[in-house]
Amino acid sequence: MRYVSLTDTQKIMEHIGLTEGVFFDLLQERLRRVEDRMLSQANSHHLDLQAALKHLVSSGGKRVRPAVTLLIGEMLDGDDDRLITLAAAIEMLHTATLVHDDLIDGALLRRGIPTINAQWSPGATVLTGDFMFAAAAKLAAETDSVAVMRLFADTLAVIVNGEITQMFASHGVVSRENYYRRIYAKTASMFVLATGAAAYLSPVEEATTEAVRTYGYQIGLAFQVVDDILDFVGDQSAIGKPVGGDLHQGLVTLPAIYYAEAHPDDADMQRVLQGDFDGAHIDRLVQAIRKSDAIAQATQEARSFVDRGVQALDGLQDNRARQALIQLAHYIVERNL
Amino acid sequence: MRYVSLTDTQKIMEHIGLTEGVFFDLLQERLRRVEDRMLSQANSHHLDLQAALKHLVSSGGKRVRPAVTLLIGEMLDGDDDRLITLAAAIEMLHTATLVHDDLIDGALLRRGIPTINAQWSPGATVLTGDFMFAAAAKLAAETDSVAVMRLFADTLAVIVNGEITQMFASHGVVSRENYYRRIYAKTASMFVLATGAAAYLSPVEEATTEAVRTYGYQIGLAFQVVDDILDFVGDQSAIGKPVGGDLHQGLVTLPAIYYAEAHPDDADMQRVLQGDFDGAHIDRLVQAIRKSDAIAQATQEARSFVDRGVQALDGLQDNRARQALIQLAHYIVERNL
Repeated sequence: MRYVSLTDTQKIMEHIGLTEGVFFDLLQERLRRVEDRMLSQANSHHLDLQAALKHLVSSGGKRVRPAVTLLIGEMLDGDDDRLITLAAAIEMLHTATLVHDDLIDGALLRRGIPTINAQWSPGATVLTGDFMFAAAAKLAAETDSVAVMRLFADTLAVIVNGEITQMFASHGVVSRENYYRRIYAKTASMFVLATGAAAYLSPVEEATTEAVRTYGYQIGLAFQVVDDILDFVGDQSAIGKPVGGDLHQGLVTLPAIYYAEAHPDDADMQRVLQGDFDGAHIDRLVQAIRKSDAIAQATQEARSFVDRGVQALDGLQDNRARQALIQLAHYIVERNL
Repeated sequence: MRYVSLTDTQKIMEHIGLTEGVFFDLLQERLRRVEDRMLSQANSHHLDLQAALKHLVSSGGKRVRPAVTLLIGEMLDGDDDRLITLAAAIEMLHTATLVHDDLIDGALLRRGIPTINAQWSPGATVLTGDFMFAAAAKLAAETDSVAVMRLFADTLAVIVNGEITQMFASHGVVSRENYYRRIYAKTASMFVLATGAAAYLSPVEEATTEAVRTYGYQIGLAFQVVDDILDFVGDQSAIGKPVGGDLHQGLVTLPAIYYAEAHPDDADMQRVLQGDFDGAHIDRLVQAIRKSDAIAQATQEARSFVDRGVQALDGLQDNRARQALIQLAHYIVERNL
């Protein structure tokens, strides 16, 4: 029996033109190997852990991070086996952070599937996340690269520090600097890990590593900006949470920042700035932002990030993997807009 | 201002005869460097994280794991700077597991000092523990040894798997095999890490690494057996929890196993085997075990572990560090008995 669904990944691959041929088969086959590496981490461990890991891996996701890892490695002619291991480490780390995030947020569903904390006690959920951190660290160590290990550990520290900063931050702050710092920690840092670590496992110079890190950084920022736009304009049933959820939590993202800049005297926005996120004024504000130019402005900014990311690949090997990375970057912005 | 107290460590050092001279000064100075390395991990991160780390490091503990790490490295002529880094990684990993354990157990005090979860929300406590896992992994990566990283990640997986197994296990099981597996995962695995990883950072052959790992394994088992004995006979105010707390939670440790073997028909023990841990029969049973031969038998067993650990050092370099390791092993059993 196969628990792994690649449906979401297939959608991406179709979008970026990877619908047939050897390359498509290879990427799909390699993503399956990534999932198998992830699943095997619970072998010889407790049966409930095996079940939890199977549940988490089978609930899928788009596998954008492992796909980026594998494509960067493919482009740079990196060691295939170690890249599979790295991609599994990165997706495992990502999944581990989601397990603890969902516990902290009390989220009962993710991608329409019950979260671990919806089924298990808080204690068991904490430990399941911890086990996945351990499994991610094991996989990272199995790349046999100290540079990968260091970047991996640094990235985890950046992500967790970002979450703590967000938790303790005074909400309702309208600040671009604050926003960019937050989305770097939350999302872009993991894309920098995916690209930079893949370069470490490839026979390339430092300048190339820096170029692919820039690609990762820029598409990571774009990825989160688009998520934040979808929070305003997305189909509620598709994103699985109420429209404007961020603002209801006092989280001021890029569309709201653009709106606040264009409407400094908006009374509802004034209340947000004063730390008031509870009331009908938030619903009004969400509707106002949806209809405003802020959405197009934020989308344009995400496209600029993608353009900068794609530019960073200029001068690198031109092969099918690079073409796929360029298309993947564009897909990140266009996926639902 | 100095936040770090070495009082508990000083007690150990006095006990093992390290009360004066260059060697004492060196170990104390090196343990201070370990603490400074730990504290510096929160630099440039959120102020509340810095405060939490300071709180955790200053609440001290005996620092047995870093002392073992440093002494093994000293005995084997390992690289001093990397051993400091390793010792900080190991103590950080140990502390991270305690942060999540205290949250899961709802413990409000540890070593008489408020836990993180007593002061912060569950979410902030989860993230603080996660940050410390990241910091531990960063330190481990800074030893620049892939072998250390692998052992480190493996050990974390063993510890967490052990906790999950204990959480999901049917309690009230009287089984030596089960017990030894549990205390290996809970305690001895970390001593194997401390000794084995210190050997990886030293110019030694595999046979020597294996010998010090055996030392770590055996004194780690002894350490936990003594903890389990103290749960029955310890001074309640000193151990900071009610006498017989393990049995009240359905956790059957070595003294109870010896007692059950000697008194197969004991009615109170029969109820434990049937999964009944709630009632006056547990208090009666705790008193019966305290007064029985089981305590002396378990103590004798801990001493046997220590003897096997000390024997494993036979044939290795005989120097002051080795003498200190032998005394430290004996201290582990004799500390409060």
